[in-house]
Amino acid sequence: MTGCWVPVPEGSHFPADNLPYGVFSTPGTPPRVGTAIGGHVLDLGAVLDDDVFRTGSLNAHLAQGPAAWARTRERIAGLLSDERHRPAVEPHLTPLDEVTLHLPFEVADYVDFYASEHHAAALGRILRPGSDPLPPNWRHLPIGYHGRAGTVVVSGTPVVRPRGQRKDPGRAAPSDGPSRRLDVEVEVGFVVGVPSPLGTPVPAAAFADHVFGVVLVNDWSARDIQAWEYVPLGPFLGKSFATSISPWVVPLAALEAARRPVPVQDPPPLGHLRGGGDWGLDITLELELNGEVVSRPPYASMYWSPAQMLAHLTSGGASLRTGDLYASGTVSGPGPGQAGSLIEITHGGREPIVLGDGSKRTFLEDGDVVTIRAFAPSVSGGRIGFGEVTGRVEPARPRPC
Amino acid sequence: MTGCWVPVPEGSHFPADNLPYGVFSTPGTPPRVGTAIGGHVLDLGAVLDDDVFRTGSLNAHLAQGPAAWARTRERIAGLLSDERHRPAVEPHLTPLDEVTLHLPFEVADYVDFYASEHHAAALGRILRPGSDPLPPNWRHLPIGYHGRAGTVVVSGTPVVRPRGQRKDPGRAAPSDGPSRRLDVEVEVGFVVGVPSPLGTPVPAAAFADHVFGVVLVNDWSARDIQAWEYVPLGPFLGKSFATSISPWVVPLAALEAARRPVPVQDPPPLGHLRGGGDWGLDITLELELNGEVVSRPPYASMYWSPAQMLAHLTSGGASLRTGDLYASGTVSGPGPGQAGSLIEITHGGREPIVLGDGSKRTFLEDGDVVTIRAFAPSVSGGRIGFGEVTGRVEPARPRPC
Repeated sequence: MTGCWVPVPEGSHFPADNLPYGVFSTPGTPPRVGTAIGGHVLDLGAVLDDDVFRTGSLNAHLAQGPAAWARTRERIAGLLSDERHRPAVEPHLTPLDEVTLHLPFEVADYVDFYASEHHAAALGRILRPGSDPLPPNWRHLPIGYHGRAGTVVVSGTPVVRPRGQRKDPGRAAPSDGPSRRLDVEVEVGFVVGVPSPLGTPVPAAAFADHVFGVVLVNDWSARDIQAWEYVPLGPFLGKSFATSISPWVVPLAALEAARRPVPVQDPPPLGHLRGGGDWGLDITLELELNGEVVSRPPYASMYWSPAQMLAHLTSGGASLRTGDLYASGTVSGPGPGQAGSLIEITHGGREPIVLGDGSKRTFLEDGDVVTIRAFAPSVSGGRIGFGEVTGRVEPARPRPC
Repeated sequence: MTGCWVPVPEGSHFPADNLPYGVFSTPGTPPRVGTAIGGHVLDLGAVLDDDVFRTGSLNAHLAQGPAAWARTRERIAGLLSDERHRPAVEPHLTPLDEVTLHLPFEVADYVDFYASEHHAAALGRILRPGSDPLPPNWRHLPIGYHGRAGTVVVSGTPVVRPRGQRKDPGRAAPSDGPSRRLDVEVEVGFVVGVPSPLGTPVPAAAFADHVFGVVLVNDWSARDIQAWEYVPLGPFLGKSFATSISPWVVPLAALEAARRPVPVQDPPPLGHLRGGGDWGLDITLELELNGEVVSRPPYASMYWSPAQMLAHLTSGGASLRTGDLYASGTVSGPGPGQAGSLIEITHGGREPIVLGDGSKRTFLEDGDVVTIRAFAPSVSGGRIGFGEVTGRVEPARPRPC
């Protein structure tokens, strides 16, 4: 991709080789599909004259598949790089700070994986001290579970502190009340475009035939509720009060320069998990708490690739639907300052972090604002951003009568 | 409800005080909403002249809420009880054996609970011998997890034996191949009509303001895949290859005579789980394998009520959407012949059942046909049925290259 007549400010997440998709509206107009370029959003239904983009979700375009995705991306790039299109296109650019961004797609099923070895081992050391930090199955398959699709919300949606049952260590019985260990999980999510039929697994090599792009995910977690409820059937209410995603879906096509092999997998993966290891991604994430970056988790350190996650998810015959979202699980790197959750950063709540205003945090307090950002190398040698996913913690509400 | 001019055969699941809703089609006509009466299905869009029923799913009617549900039920009952309507209505009755039945509603989120004490304890004795059969949290809250909404299928859909990783006891590493312990779970599912906003729990007392009705569920389970994958995040591929539901949704209004208090709950439930215990249901299920009834699980023995399940599901602030489905978990009674899964009936596969043809079963073989039926007392003193949910096991398919 060459130049772009739309001005792109220095440091923008959205240079001309990104072109992420989202859903926006302005006062008095309906939500519709747009692409971000520099500090603007481009109305795609208007400039491409295509009803696929004149809807309140990306799903119709997602379902069209890789050839249409590539053609559309090429058309948009053409419109933005050739000055001759400027008179027709410019009226359909709106400054980003004048639009409302919506959930970019209708989520079908939502799956959350657990694909960071450093995160899984750190949690194992905190929750099951003295035993092997990784569960016996961990290196054999990407562990995952289904989350609540209906509580996936767009960045900016306030997060109400959940109430629930939690049992204090040393107490015989649980109590009911607001979570006291509200945490975040820094994750990357993969958005499925092309469906697959029931009973037919999708091989890892078909990853880019089905997956359209990437969002940032904050998998808010109530650790105390989760700890009490999760044996034997896994996380439930500890996770299903809000899962925030970024409003921009960055297409895989924008991430060509970020592709990396995943770390060596030992033992070698079995069956459907062979291959797909060439879909590691060099994405650097930032976890910001009340305006301060407290961690920079490197996605490149993830053990299982998103192609392997997809192959695993469908390996028993599960079908894919347009709008399926699967997330990586918390991204945590091996080093200090690379953990993607507060429970890791504070060693289970035992070592608070001190913020610039002198206040301390183990878990989140009411009013805290958490923002996740991310960057990756771009095909033109610069970098692209993913925008951000942010949320403010609101106090727990009284129980209804 | 008084008489009905449509003939209702002796023993029919669908007398005039049932009136369950489903989606049907005939060759060359689109799927639309109907109600079952005796051996016929009544085309509701045609006789009520209402577009809400001229769609391929129940969702539009589900979203209308209790007042519309009651009004519609009353109108249908009126049409069927008064001979004067016969000339106008009769042309819109089609024999059940001439229609194709479809998935009755679009499933939003799917949650599966674990609400039978007898099932949970039996599984605990099989999977964790020597320790307390119930997990410590079991009597404090209804344990649940999210399943895959996209693999909920209508009765009659073939069930392909899943492949996956399973680890034989005594082996160090897992192997990949077709499940060798394919099982069923006899369950009852609850269909949500009226949504609720994020952040606002639904109290147990509001159960009938949100839940429209009941389906039968077969939660097919690959025990070997499940056993290897489920620690620490719960069941995933062991459950997400197919979850079959009955084509008819029996409205709560048809189950008034089946309401019972649930068994005594000790310790007394906390917070949002108080109340709702008056929504136990006297439903007798039948598990049939290749034409022989092998078990009759009594739903009345369930520990947690569906009103408590709903209150729990939303207690952390999770929203409800029209089409949400939550299932009870395996229904198993205390007695012999009352277990709702083969792993219980065969004591973990150690004591095969012998079928009438002399063949033995521990888990399911290719070609096996499993059918679940159920009955409940009706308001007129007879009984209503739920129809059936059935499925045939097909051999595992080769892995894609």
